[in-house]
Amino acid sequence: MSRFIEIVEVGPRDGLQNEKALLDVDQKLTFISRLEAAGAKRMETVSFVNPKRVPQMAGAEEVMEGLPTAAGRSRIGLVLNMKGWERAVAARCDEANVVVCATDGFGIRNQGANTAEQMAALAAIAARRDAQGGPPISATFSVAFGCPFDGEVSQDQVVALAREAASLNIAEIALADTIGVADPWTVRARVEAVKAAIGDKKLRLHFHDTRNTGLANAYAGVEAGVDILDASCGGLGGCPFAPDATGNIGTEDLVYMLERAGFSTGYDLPGLISTAKWVSDLLGKPPTSSVARSGLFPA
Amino acid sequence: MSRFIEIVEVGPRDGLQNEKALLDVDQKLTFISRLEAAGAKRMETVSFVNPKRVPQMAGAEEVMEGLPTAAGRSRIGLVLNMKGWERAVAARCDEANVVVCATDGFGIRNQGANTAEQMAALAAIAARRDAQGGPPISATFSVAFGCPFDGEVSQDQVVALAREAASLNIAEIALADTIGVADPWTVRARVEAVKAAIGDKKLRLHFHDTRNTGLANAYAGVEAGVDILDASCGGLGGCPFAPDATGNIGTEDLVYMLERAGFSTGYDLPGLISTAKWVSDLLGKPPTSSVARSGLFPA
Repeated sequence: MSRFIEIVEVGPRDGLQNEKALLDVDQKLTFISRLEAAGAKRMETVSFVNPKRVPQMAGAEEVMEGLPTAAGRSRIGLVLNMKGWERAVAARCDEANVVVCATDGFGIRNQGANTAEQMAALAAIAARRDAQGGPPISATFSVAFGCPFDGEVSQDQVVALAREAASLNIAEIALADTIGVADPWTVRARVEAVKAAIGDKKLRLHFHDTRNTGLANAYAGVEAGVDILDASCGGLGGCPFAPDATGNIGTEDLVYMLERAGFSTGYDLPGLISTAKWVSDLLGKPPTSSVARSGLFPA
Repeated sequence: MSRFIEIVEVGPRDGLQNEKALLDVDQKLTFISRLEAAGAKRMETVSFVNPKRVPQMAGAEEVMEGLPTAAGRSRIGLVLNMKGWERAVAARCDEANVVVCATDGFGIRNQGANTAEQMAALAAIAARRDAQGGPPISATFSVAFGCPFDGEVSQDQVVALAREAASLNIAEIALADTIGVADPWTVRARVEAVKAAIGDKKLRLHFHDTRNTGLANAYAGVEAGVDILDASCGGLGGCPFAPDATGNIGTEDLVYMLERAGFSTGYDLPGLISTAKWVSDLLGKPPTSSVARSGLFPA
């Protein structure tokens, strides 16, 4: 049997969050249901941030309320702090993805808290879950390969954070190349070091295609033994630090690369491509993923 | 010392050949001189095809005539047949790149000759050079990872062609993913098989980013021991079989990925980026390479 790679769809969260156009709750629900029909089993559907600061993510509770129950589907809510956790629990998210910035510079500017404060919040959330229950927790370290404010981020720094997170009762740890600066050699080295530090915790990778290295980094991660990758339908999402740049790696590009090499992903490529075109039309822009423009091979 | 990867700039040939807008001889000369100033040591500068069929490549002799002599620079002319070879010799190209289509379907439609006829032409050119002299020959197998007409191209087929070419007195063999369908796992396997078949001949790889796998394929090739890669400044060049798709992997994207990982390339990234923007302006389109849009990291 072919090796299965789990692709977590992040279009409705990281994708839409970085688009100028706003989708309303009904449009988001349609987007999510199209993605699930195209094969998405785990998806970041909402973000429990302040809608005054991030208007693209408004209506998180309404989106979760509007989603039909579906066995075998996990709808993930992004969480930055205890208030976000409480909202995610109340909204019945299947998982909570707690984001911790790997650098103080990014953390203070992006979330108003330095890395140590965010690690403390992660630990408090995990403790609250231990005491009161709640969905499984994934911890994502943003800017884990480079920071627009603090510059280079060392492997030691990332490994130390991952090791600390792994000591908590959480299900999964993720490294995110938030601004798309990683190269595949660094990815491979960093994945191997983090895997050695986190024992049997699951490891997920999150790449942006800002400098066109996204799929190379994904390939390097898979070669280093990672089985879980984020991607965004249509390559949605830009980069606030590089206004003309592209966003997350496109789900259809990643699925194409993996399935052409014989991996299975559970996604339906034609369905992904039509969804990428549909959402790009809604947003008034062409898809930035490549496969949505080039078509498949063999046709 | 860091490992050196030789990047052959193909913007003036494969790049411009697939653009709608035409550059005149003076514009081409400026483009080439800017690329050499940015570090290009080997470059496909011209193509000796029929300018009635490929108007973008008109003026090959004038371009070669207009280039200032420069020690340590190799200006490569693309050649499809004996007539092209004779033109390349007369124009004093430093190298001739003879293209052979790996499939009959592509060969007949693109060059009016099947693969066996093109291999015979390659052998005849190599024999003519043995007898009368001329520049070193590189043989490039196009559609070596998939063909828009014949579909899948087997590794055995490519290995057999490479082995046959290696029996000739030529300097280098290249595999080209002309329509951008390769995945990095296939690249790695195919490179290893071809290397085993061609002995000590140099091996070069040529990737297109049509389905966003170009840099992943380049990474896989470098990991498999290849030290020579083609790329096109600005990601110039589209794909005639996928009208909305992007073209060759961008030189600045490839340089970014390699140099960020500690390889040396001899290129100057800011110079490449400004040249990518300059030529894209001339062609009336934004650069399709990512680094020309996103900027560098660290800045």
